[in-house]
Amino acid sequence: MHEVFDAVLGTNLLHANQHLADHNRAHFDEMGVFCVNLMSGPGAGKTSLLEKALVDLKNHFRVAVIEGDMTTQLDAERLRATGVPVIAINTGRACHLDAKMVHGGLHLLAREASLDQFDLLIVENVGNLVCPAEFEVGEHCKIALLSITEGEDKPLKYPLMFHEADCVVVTKLDLAPYLDFDRVKLEANLHEINPEAPIFWVSSKNGSGLGDWLHWLAQRVYTHRAAQPLAVS
Amino acid sequence: MHEVFDAVLGTNLLHANQHLADHNRAHFDEMGVFCVNLMSGPGAGKTSLLEKALVDLKNHFRVAVIEGDMTTQLDAERLRATGVPVIAINTGRACHLDAKMVHGGLHLLAREASLDQFDLLIVENVGNLVCPAEFEVGEHCKIALLSITEGEDKPLKYPLMFHEADCVVVTKLDLAPYLDFDRVKLEANLHEINPEAPIFWVSSKNGSGLGDWLHWLAQRVYTHRAAQPLAVS
Repeated sequence: MHEVFDAVLGTNLLHANQHLADHNRAHFDEMGVFCVNLMSGPGAGKTSLLEKALVDLKNHFRVAVIEGDMTTQLDAERLRATGVPVIAINTGRACHLDAKMVHGGLHLLAREASLDQFDLLIVENVGNLVCPAEFEVGEHCKIALLSITEGEDKPLKYPLMFHEADCVVVTKLDLAPYLDFDRVKLEANLHEINPEAPIFWVSSKNGSGLGDWLHWLAQRVYTHRAAQPLAVS
Repeated sequence: MHEVFDAVLGTNLLHANQHLADHNRAHFDEMGVFCVNLMSGPGAGKTSLLEKALVDLKNHFRVAVIEGDMTTQLDAERLRATGVPVIAINTGRACHLDAKMVHGGLHLLAREASLDQFDLLIVENVGNLVCPAEFEVGEHCKIALLSITEGEDKPLKYPLMFHEADCVVVTKLDLAPYLDFDRVKLEANLHEINPEAPIFWVSSKNGSGLGDWLHWLAQRVYTHRAAQPLAVS
């Protein structure tokens, strides 16, 4: 978050974003869509996780993705290969997605299918452990990824991201034998910042741990849907 | 970079920062100090590289570090163990160091020793591949780190950081046997964004490649010093 945000302008900007995020969320609720905001630093493996997860998720849910990147369509193309609708948003110089950008993405998605045709919308944010945590996009659930190659200290050094997360997915577990990696220490640091969030240990490369995380996510989608009134025409 | 920066305010903020960065740089020149801005995403290994590098650098240069982190003194403590003076700056919610923060750090450093007692000041920025690239701190040289675990596509996805870099240090090379990592592809992507910057392939764990990078850095320090008038009392 840039230092300008300490001033009134920052508060107003966050306030305006929150207002639009709430609007997006109300729209999702009305349409029966569960929205996930997937966040991490660069290269933690958000897209790799989704490449694997979407193959399973699309068997259970009607799912779409909004893919945020500063430039390029590289990640969007990788995810389109799964057969799931993907809307790419290039943020240009912006270091995070905000509610307005996602709102624009929803309008693009509506050209492919009406929003109520989806159960689950996954927003893959720009790779950044700082600013995305401050800007809600209308999500029902924030998921923070951290790869074990990044070090056990990251929850302490980037506390807002991990404090805000509804669950933490620790990725690249297949590399554990080749790192001086202390799982107990990372777990302790995550619990210090966020005692509530479950932690899932996964390898997108060999698929280990993915089932548990997908089960958790599916439960969230179904629980949310159970709480919504059924739209009857 | 937050979207507010598209407006006049952003331009003014960057302009004000540039003014102070130039002021810092003039001060460095006057004092015969070469300043490096070390940047990367979270967990790419800036601190691990410095832990190794400072042991050698302090045999050749009078070196100090300004260590930027949102919270905690963890990295500063790791670097103090090398015996080099380290000034820790906690940025709070700010996602990068700016010229004003570094200026404040210089005043703290001056309590330990006059700035002209140093040859080399290394500023370790907040872990973020986006915003630090936009805010000069007065450095003579920008060094971008990227770990091979982050993927070959990162220069294309975060172009400003790699475009601005005077050299790129690719870290964690010891993990190459355990990754689907394409060195030629990363090299091509780096050259596409920045054909000039030399690339150094290092492992801070086993020390491979560190010598070449330290030699390059030392050459930069000496070349800069050679261009400065000798202060004679």
